[in-house]
Amino acid sequence: KKIVALPGDGIGPEIMDAGIQVLNQLTPKYGLDYKIERYDFGGCAIDSTGTPLPKTTLKACQEADAILLGAIGGPKWSNAPKRPEQGLLELRKNLGLFANIRPVKISKSLEALSPLKSERIRGVDFIIVRELTGGIYFGEPRELKKERALDTCLYTRSEIQRIMRQAFNIARTRKKKVTSVDKANVLATSKLWREVAEEVAKEFPDVKLEHQLVDSAAMLLIQNPKQFDVIVTENLFGDILSDEASVIPGTLGVLPSASHSEKNSSLYEPIHGSAPDIAGKNSANPLSMIFSISMMLRESFKEYSAAEELEAACERVIEKGYTTKDLGGKTTTTEFVQALIEELK
Amino acid sequence: KKIVALPGDGIGPEIMDAGIQVLNQLTPKYGLDYKIERYDFGGCAIDSTGTPLPKTTLKACQEADAILLGAIGGPKWSNAPKRPEQGLLELRKNLGLFANIRPVKISKSLEALSPLKSERIRGVDFIIVRELTGGIYFGEPRELKKERALDTCLYTRSEIQRIMRQAFNIARTRKKKVTSVDKANVLATSKLWREVAEEVAKEFPDVKLEHQLVDSAAMLLIQNPKQFDVIVTENLFGDILSDEASVIPGTLGVLPSASHSEKNSSLYEPIHGSAPDIAGKNSANPLSMIFSISMMLRESFKEYSAAEELEAACERVIEKGYTTKDLGGKTTTTEFVQALIEELK
Ligand SMILES: CC(C)[C@H](C(=O)O)[C@@H](O)C(=O)O
Ligand SMILES: CC(C)[C@H](C(=O)O)[C@@H](O)C(=O)O
Repeated sequence: KKIVALPGDGIGPEIMDAGIQVLNQLTPKYGLDYKIERYDFGGCAIDSTGTPLPKTTLKACQEADAILLGAIGGPKWSNAPKRPEQGLLELRKNLGLFANIRPVKISKSLEALSPLKSERIRGVDFIIVRELTGGIYFGEPRELKKERALDTCLYTRSEIQRIMRQAFNIARTRKKKVTSVDKANVLATSKLWREVAEEVAKEFPDVKLEHQLVDSAAMLLIQNPKQFDVIVTENLFGDILSDEASVIPGTLGVLPSASHSEKNSSLYEPIHGSAPDIAGKNSANPLSMIFSISMMLRESFKEYSAAEELEAACERVIEKGYTTKDLGGKTTTTEFVQALIEELK
Repeated sequence: KKIVALPGDGIGPEIMDAGIQVLNQLTPKYGLDYKIERYDFGGCAIDSTGTPLPKTTLKACQEADAILLGAIGGPKWSNAPKRPEQGLLELRKNLGLFANIRPVKISKSLEALSPLKSERIRGVDFIIVRELTGGIYFGEPRELKKERALDTCLYTRSEIQRIMRQAFNIARTRKKKVTSVDKANVLATSKLWREVAEEVAKEFPDVKLEHQLVDSAAMLLIQNPKQFDVIVTENLFGDILSDEASVIPGTLGVLPSASHSEKNSSLYEPIHGSAPDIAGKNSANPLSMIFSISMMLRESFKEYSAAEELEAACERVIEKGYTTKDLGGKTTTTEFVQALIEELK
């Protein structure tokens, strides 16, 4: 198996190193054979090649069995002709990574950290399925002039169908409930979204479908997050709601994501950014990367026991009190990795 | 003074009646002379005239000194050729109500209700300034076909300038901090938004400007809401963030809003919807309407003492334990109004 690692910028390289160390400790006993190759991507690729997504990086991703991404971006490149984020959008588009899966769970040992009262969040366990290659992120025309600017939000029926099917298939393995989020009282794209949701629901008679307007969903996500199982939504709403949902565990530092395509390999990345303010300080929380790796083990390599062992070990290490700064503790990134590696031995 | 009242649908008429009773009790001692006229708007106007915004209603609004709106919409009209919400968008557009002001405060007696831990929200006091007549709500072209749909998000420089100035002017009377929310790492309209924010900031050297991406803002609003003073954002982001912010007081039932134009009168309305599920049950919380009326007293009629008296009386009534169901209590709408009227005597 070939894994392409894109460490990226800011804390990206630190958490990538952490994740790879943990992976190397975990896998021998499962007989999983893989080779990891690192490529430049994002700001560091702008520095080395002038562009955030160099051709060699894209080619390596196309040939990989799985892709791990750290994080990209930073103030250093905010005036670059092509910013790091542009590279990420191009990568998603080029690999056809249309389905972004963002699970939100909270472990009991982290409840105290949440800004939300514990009784509201105990047992929260839902997945946001975000459409990742359509909508206003990619629609044409796009125009930026002195006197006006415009963006186009565009969705085709087939784009909506495939993300809906993804969401319903996931719901089938869980609590069998899909919440489709749109703004159908205003947007044409949302009207089509809702219509297709209803249609696809007929293919999954065992799964319950409900609709929420995005404004209302933004409220319910905090007011009563336990009601959700699978939330499916378009690109921009998914961006907003998944960051919002990160307040439930109290930190972005523990949330992983997976992005799937129809033909290419999947990409796994933390949902947080590159956190330039804490980069190089050995204080970043590597859990989002480690959980992204466990998603990779499960979804790309079907190594379910390895993924379970890894997640259980993380839980125990946290319970023992090893927590990084974002979790209210003092453990450094390397200390956390060391403790986790001991736990896995 | 002429006040046009648009009770609307669902709980709209109940809370409008409540609000008007309270207003009539309050104002005599301030010598405020006004006439209130009710007009059909929304679903009830579809029933009576076939269209959610009848010409007579629009004309009355254009001639009014202030407009009060209850709430509109409901499942009954969800398949109407023109839905109630469409009437609301037309009203906003026709009256040029570009600046929607949504204050978020939490009184100590309501802290327990919030899904958020008390220490996170004690003293929260910010205002969301939402652009209300531009962006993807109104942009053309808009297309809904069988195979695809599209919406256009459009902003002109002058639309952004005037909402920014509104926000900076408000910040000047407060903690002198403006947080502009956009998605400038992806959207062209957001790039223009950010550029104009920087420009307008130069006219207000005493006010501090900061930028947040909408995904990050959705997180910070819950993670650390005390950091905000004035949040200014475009139409759709404002819709999402202001509903999200309603979780801070734990209920939409207490949040008012004001919408201002350059030439016409202002409109005051609760930020919540028509709640058809509890309509007619005498259980709706009239506070959002009453606080909307106090915004009217202050912003349209400069009756500052009357507004203050009204708000203080509401606070005392809540402290005495009169709370409606959404606030965890058992007080009916009419009982609440009665208690408040006693308090005002
Ligand atoms: C960096 C940015 C373009 C990206 C997005 O908006 O999709 C990020 O916020 C994310 O959620 O992965
Ligand atoms: C009813 C709907 C069109 C409206 C909006 O999205 O603006 C409402 O949600 C609001 O916030 O006033």
